[in-house]
Amino acid sequence: MTGTIGVDLGGTKIQTVTLVDGVVVGSNRELTPQSGADDVITAMVESIRASITDASLTLADISGIGIGSPGRIDSAKGTVENSPNVPGFLQRVPMAQLIAQELGGPLPVIDNDIRVAVRGERQHGGLAGYRDAIGVFMGTGVGGGLIIGGVLDSGRGGAGEIGHVIVKPGGRRCGCGGLGHLEAYAGRASMEVHAQHLVAQGRHTILFDLMEKKGRTRLSSSVWASALKRNDRMAIQLLHQAAWAMSTALASIQNLLDVEAIMIGGGLGDRLGEPFIDDVRARMLPLLLSSENPPKLLATTLQDLSGAVGAAVLAQDAAAGR
Amino acid sequence: MTGTIGVDLGGTKIQTVTLVDGVVVGSNRELTPQSGADDVITAMVESIRASITDASLTLADISGIGIGSPGRIDSAKGTVENSPNVPGFLQRVPMAQLIAQELGGPLPVIDNDIRVAVRGERQHGGLAGYRDAIGVFMGTGVGGGLIIGGVLDSGRGGAGEIGHVIVKPGGRRCGCGGLGHLEAYAGRASMEVHAQHLVAQGRHTILFDLMEKKGRTRLSSSVWASALKRNDRMAIQLLHQAAWAMSTALASIQNLLDVEAIMIGGGLGDRLGEPFIDDVRARMLPLLLSSENPPKLLATTLQDLSGAVGAAVLAQDAAAGR
Repeated sequence: MTGTIGVDLGGTKIQTVTLVDGVVVGSNRELTPQSGADDVITAMVESIRASITDASLTLADISGIGIGSPGRIDSAKGTVENSPNVPGFLQRVPMAQLIAQELGGPLPVIDNDIRVAVRGERQHGGLAGYRDAIGVFMGTGVGGGLIIGGVLDSGRGGAGEIGHVIVKPGGRRCGCGGLGHLEAYAGRASMEVHAQHLVAQGRHTILFDLMEKKGRTRLSSSVWASALKRNDRMAIQLLHQAAWAMSTALASIQNLLDVEAIMIGGGLGDRLGEPFIDDVRARMLPLLLSSENPPKLLATTLQDLSGAVGAAVLAQDAAAGR
Repeated sequence: MTGTIGVDLGGTKIQTVTLVDGVVVGSNRELTPQSGADDVITAMVESIRASITDASLTLADISGIGIGSPGRIDSAKGTVENSPNVPGFLQRVPMAQLIAQELGGPLPVIDNDIRVAVRGERQHGGLAGYRDAIGVFMGTGVGGGLIIGGVLDSGRGGAGEIGHVIVKPGGRRCGCGGLGHLEAYAGRASMEVHAQHLVAQGRHTILFDLMEKKGRTRLSSSVWASALKRNDRMAIQLLHQAAWAMSTALASIQNLLDVEAIMIGGGLGDRLGEPFIDDVRARMLPLLLSSENPPKLLATTLQDLSGAVGAAVLAQDAAAGR
C-alpha cells in the first residue's frame, strides 16, 4: 500500500494527512512553533512522521510529499520566502531540501497554500467536475485560486490574489499597504485592526471581551462567530462590510471570467458558513452583468483539511507530470 | 493559392480582409447598413466578395470564413443576438447560415468581436508569444479578451467582459444598467452621455462643436483626440477619468491574474495611443501588489485590422480544431 503525504503549513497550525487512494487514512495536527524556521521545519517533519504512524504505514510506504505554504514559493527550487505569518519565513528557506534531509524521505513538492487548497477541493471536494471555478479563502488574509479551462492558473507564479482586488478606490488600508482591497474588509487581521480603531473612537463591542474569555490573543473565527450569535452590533456591521466587499469583488471577477462556481472557505469562511454565503450571494446577484445564469456559490466540503488533502494531491499530480 | 476571409462586424463599419499565409493580400471596408439584419448580411457578403476580388482570388480559392461580431454569439449554431449596436441584431440572427446561402461559400465560423481581435493580435500582432495576457478594447463600449495558460479563455461563453469590472461601487451608471463599471468611465458612449450631462449643468466644452464641424453625430474617437489637442478642459478631465478607471480595473485584474502583458486597443484606445497608455501605466503601477515585475502595457500592432485578421485566424483555427 502506497501513501501520499500532504502538509498544510499555517501561521498557527501545521495540518498533515496521509492519503491512500484518495482517502484520508492518517492525520496529525501540530501547533506552529513561533521560535524560527528551524523549529518549524522540525515540527513539520514530526507531524509527517505522526501522520504516517497514524495510518499504520512506514516512511518506505510513502511515494510523495506535498506542502502548501503561505508566502512566495519557488516550486522548482523548493523554497519559501516572504511569509510574514510564519516565524522565520520572511527570508528564503530551502524548505523542500531541509525536510527531505531531516525526514530521510522523498523531496517534497511545494506550492502556495491557497492554490493547494483549491487543488484539494477540485480533486476530492466541492469543486470536482467544474471547468471554470474560483476558490476564495478568508483567513488571516484573503487568498484565492483559479481553475480556468480545467487547469489551475498560476499566471507567472502569483495568480489568484483575489484579496488584492480593489473594491473601493482610496478605501480602507490593506495589510499590503494598498487602499480599498477586498482583504482590508474581509481578512481577519484587517477586520481586527478596524474593530480596534472603532473601539478607540468610543464604539462599544463584546468582541475583545469574548477574545479574552476564550483565552485568545486575536479575534479568531470563533470569536467573530460568538459575537455574531450574541447580536454584537459592531461584529454584525463589520461582517456585513465583509460580505459587501466579497460580493463586489466576486461580481467583478464573475463579469470578467464567467465561471461556473465560486467556493468560499478558509478559517473565517468555513466558520461563518451558509448564512454568510447567502448574504454574499444576495448582494452579488444584482451586480452581475447577466442575472440569467449566475455562478453557484458553495461552501468548502473538505473544510480545514482542504489544504492538507490538496497538498497530497499536489504530490500525486507532480509525480504524474500534471 | 488558398485564402481565408476574416470579417469584423461593427456598428458603423464592416471590415473584411483576405489572408494568405498570414499576410493581408486583400481587404474591403463597407459602412454598416442601419436598415436591418437582411441588409447587414447582404453588405457583409458584398464586402467578402470585394475582398476576394481585391486579392485577385475567386470564391473557389477560399478555404474558410471567420466573423467577429458584437452581441451574444452561439458559435456552435452560428447565431448572433442581443447586439444593440448593430441594427436588427437584438433578436437572434442565423448569421453563418444566411451568409453561406447568399455567398454560396463555406459556412462561416463566428465568435465575439473582441475575443477575435485578441486572437488576431496573438497570432500576428503584439500579443504573439505571451502565455498570459489581456487585451482591452475601448470603443463604443469596453471589451476584453483573456489569454490564460496559452489558451483563449471563454468561460461559459461570456468571459472577457472587462468593461463590467466595478471600479467605483455605486458610481456612474453603465450602459448595461450597472453602477461604477469601467465602461461607464472609459467607453465612448458613456463618456458622451457624461459630457452632455456636464454641458446641461453649464460646463463649457468644444467637444460638440468639433463633432458638428467634423460632420459627425457622435463624439467619435477623432473628436476626442482633436479636443485633447486643443486642451479642452472637459475632454482632458474625462480622459483622465477614463485612464483612472482603466488603471483601477487593470490593477485589480493584474493582482488576480498575474499576466505578462496588457494590450490597450479599440477605436478610442488606438486613437489616444501611447500618451494615454503612459497615463494608465503611471496610475496602475502604484496599485499593483508587486511593483517588481509589472506587466507590459502595449498598444495594438494591427490597429483597426485586429478584428478582421483575428476573424481569419479564427477560421483557420477552427479548421485545425484549435
